[in-house]
Amino acid sequence: MKFSLLQIAQLLSAQIEGNAQVEISNVAKIQEAKTGDIAFLANPKYEPYIYTTQASAVIVNKDFQPKQAVSATLLRVEDAYTAFSKLLLEYEKLINSPKKGIEQPCYIHEKAIVGENVYVGAFTYISEKAQIGSNTQIYPNVFIGENVKIGENTIIYAGVKIYKNCVIGNNCIIHAGAVIGSDGFGFAPQTDGSFQTIPQLGNVVIEDNVSIGANTTIDRATLGATLIKKGVKIDNLVQIAHNVVIGENTVIAAQVGIAGSTEVGANCMFGGQVGIAGHLKIANKVNIGAQSGLGTDITQENTNWQGSPAIDLKEFYRAYAVFKKLPEIYKKLTQIERQLQED
Amino acid sequence: MKFSLLQIAQLLSAQIEGNAQVEISNVAKIQEAKTGDIAFLANPKYEPYIYTTQASAVIVNKDFQPKQAVSATLLRVEDAYTAFSKLLLEYEKLINSPKKGIEQPCYIHEKAIVGENVYVGAFTYISEKAQIGSNTQIYPNVFIGENVKIGENTIIYAGVKIYKNCVIGNNCIIHAGAVIGSDGFGFAPQTDGSFQTIPQLGNVVIEDNVSIGANTTIDRATLGATLIKKGVKIDNLVQIAHNVVIGENTVIAAQVGIAGSTEVGANCMFGGQVGIAGHLKIANKVNIGAQSGLGTDITQENTNWQGSPAIDLKEFYRAYAVFKKLPEIYKKLTQIERQLQED
Amino acid sequence: MKFSLLQIAQLLSAQIEGNAQVEISNVAKIQEAKTGDIAFLANPKYEPYIYTTQASAVIVNKDFQPKQAVSATLLRVEDAYTAFSKLLLEYEKLINSPKKGIEQPCYIHEKAIVGENVYVGAFTYISEKAQIGSNTQIYPNVFIGENVKIGENTIIYAGVKIYKNCVIGNNCIIHAGAVIGSDGFGFAPQTDGSFQTIPQLGNVVIEDNVSIGANTTIDRATLGATLIKKGVKIDNLVQIAHNVVIGENTVIAAQVGIAGSTEVGANCMFGGQVGIAGHLKIANKVNIGAQSGLGTDITQENTNWQGSPAIDLKEFYRAYAVFKKLPEIYKKLTQIERQLQED
Repeated sequence: MKFSLLQIAQLLSAQIEGNAQVEISNVAKIQEAKTGDIAFLANPKYEPYIYTTQASAVIVNKDFQPKQAVSATLLRVEDAYTAFSKLLLEYEKLINSPKKGIEQPCYIHEKAIVGENVYVGAFTYISEKAQIGSNTQIYPNVFIGENVKIGENTIIYAGVKIYKNCVIGNNCIIHAGAVIGSDGFGFAPQTDGSFQTIPQLGNVVIEDNVSIGANTTIDRATLGATLIKKGVKIDNLVQIAHNVVIGENTVIAAQVGIAGSTEVGANCMFGGQVGIAGHLKIANKVNIGAQSGLGTDITQENTNWQGSPAIDLKEFYRAYAVFKKLPEIYKKLTQIERQLQED
Repeated sequence: MKFSLLQIAQLLSAQIEGNAQVEISNVAKIQEAKTGDIAFLANPKYEPYIYTTQASAVIVNKDFQPKQAVSATLLRVEDAYTAFSKLLLEYEKLINSPKKGIEQPCYIHEKAIVGENVYVGAFTYISEKAQIGSNTQIYPNVFIGENVKIGENTIIYAGVKIYKNCVIGNNCIIHAGAVIGSDGFGFAPQTDGSFQTIPQLGNVVIEDNVSIGANTTIDRATLGATLIKKGVKIDNLVQIAHNVVIGENTVIAAQVGIAGSTEVGANCMFGGQVGIAGHLKIANKVNIGAQSGLGTDITQENTNWQGSPAIDLKEFYRAYAVFKKLPEIYKKLTQIERQLQED
Repeated sequence: MKFSLLQIAQLLSAQIEGNAQVEISNVAKIQEAKTGDIAFLANPKYEPYIYTTQASAVIVNKDFQPKQAVSATLLRVEDAYTAFSKLLLEYEKLINSPKKGIEQPCYIHEKAIVGENVYVGAFTYISEKAQIGSNTQIYPNVFIGENVKIGENTIIYAGVKIYKNCVIGNNCIIHAGAVIGSDGFGFAPQTDGSFQTIPQLGNVVIEDNVSIGANTTIDRATLGATLIKKGVKIDNLVQIAHNVVIGENTVIAAQVGIAGSTEVGANCMFGGQVGIAGHLKIANKVNIGAQSGLGTDITQENTNWQGSPAIDLKEFYRAYAVFKKLPEIYKKLTQIERQLQED
């Protein structure tokens, strides 16, 4: 496949600077691009590569000012990263087409309802009364429990397990190995030191446009639903405990753990390996830095947190800068004490 | 299904306060309950809901003193949480019945032994000489290796993988995607900087009444057994390395990691994302707070730990309270130094 | 199977001390060994067991000086741990033989290419144009995507999922439930607060002699490849994000997370639960202690890091030793201030 730069410029509402006659046949990273490739530059860290790249064209921000000669044709846009991702989306549509058809052997219960143009891979198991919406793709080795409802245009990758009664929306992507609806971790202590399992009778509800990462686990509620609201993006190996609610468009990086019954607001961002205790409420637009541990409610929107336990981000970094000086501080203090005693 | 409040009161040895004639058809959270539902109140954080709930009945602790009028009938019990979980157990028995029968296609080796009333889901693989006890349920897409022994009344959810020679007890629950018996992480460094894999010839032994969470991994021992003793409860995405021993009734929250050869006592509780180094010994009844990192033996029972590296819980929180003041401390110290030099 | 001690001594180039006539039938841990077993002693922590063990023979370091009488025959070698692992390797070859043959039902696309002496377990799915090298073993319930290339003598355990276009080398081991090639976590923020998925069109390339742990996830690159170089050893539940590069013979313990586009050098060692931010460069032979969080490049080889954010290991431990004294420091400082004001 070859594209003219004019086609691409039109798609991205870009201004062409340089040779407009180049032909593009592939997309690539700026540091690896070859003739015929189009790349992009958004993160200033990668600017040096634009002066050496062999890419035929590079998408840049409107206000990019080269400090040296650039041989590639520039496509100036409002936001280079967004424009490039738009280009990737179009390119992906050309090279990938959705899978369709029911492969054999698979197990579809006679009381399951499967919509139009659905893909069901071999060795996938669809239980009684499950419903699969049209144009949804279910890869091989997937388990769909009783009475599960899955919307339209959703992709369920290989080896996903969805327990009974869970609900998945439209346009969702669930990556390989994710587990939706496993029992919440609830046990009542007994007098002999052992624990009685508390039945988990609720489900998991995942709204539209949600992404769930590979091998992520989301537990079913004890009663009611563990709720992932629309537009939420969850990375790999994340743990969402029972009865948790995640607000719209919140983004959760890999290996985060959120304990039971916590309610997270909309448009929050949690860095990798963050841990959040149970029964908390977190306001909208809260950012929590990687590896932080949250133990209290956050009531104020638009705040940034860091540390374990997490405190205000700036306060944390100011304190941590001094933390390194603790041996020096301790020494000075001891000297002062001695000096004062001598006085 | 409808139940009279008298039936429920009898089951829970509860004292009825209010209208004893209400009929109950469902269990619900106090903040979401509707007419016909029974809810419970144990955590004081949820007390406000008891004055507004539409639940027909609420289970409360014996000594609960309402501060306002409550319209629901109260069921007073010794311990509301335990009583409610007992009710859930009975309710679950009514709505769920154990699965039975061998679904096709599945793969059961001719030298495998399968007990009575066993459920084997489609696409499940049972290897040579494996033994499955009576009334055990094995969901679809499970892999059971050679010579694995599984007890009675155990539930193995979809996509669990159990490597050869491992032993699983009675009344266990293993959630979807868990991996039991993968190779321990052992490599001998070579002079060229590469590593030689050390064969892991042991197994994993899981005793009775153990719960294992979704996508949790438990490695086989190099020699002998990685041992999970009876009554242990392990949450999702936990890592248990080779040769580890976990004592009876220990509870391990999500994303905890325990390195090789560590021996954990009985009745311990580890919070989420705790990390424990290898070759340690931990006494009974030790609590380690979320995200803590343990690097030394704990010889004293009934102790509480926090931080990375973990220290005494109270000591940690006292120190962390001052940590936030470090910039202030540093400033003061500098001022004092200056003052003393001027003197 | 019985072996003479002479055979074993020859294999390990060991010097025999004591009764050379004993027969060995099994390998065992020194603390559990019985008559007929051979054990080893490398870690001094286990030395007391050598005076009480019932093992018939124990492999020890050349320079081991017993402090009491030892009844077992000693095999003195250059390095006891390496010798023991060599013995285990030989023993494993005797008791395990590689699996072969295609079990039914499995799904092998007619355009897939499968080499000689390959094992394909039941319920395994091999997509169009996938290539499987000779002597490779693929356990049940595995998913291999389109155009995936797997080398020779590689073992893919049960339930592994490999997305399309990924490349796996020779002599690799991928443990159960691992996911290779899931989408990188990339989303472009939109003006309404939602996120647009950025297509991930690259792949994952895993070179020769690599081990990947159970339920570990490695994301495909946006463009180009996420690259795991030869000899790398990765433990369970590790997250490797898109576009990451891991240098040769680097060892990564369980539950580590490495964010997007970071380049890790060769011969590094990362402890459990380490978190590494995106777009970093890490030099060769860098050690990062368990639970540490790295937020900046490391340009110096042979350095040791600890803490979150990570600093020099020794500096961290010196500071942390004083951290515990912070309440005392704060008290002293306040006293000094008061004293100076009174002066």
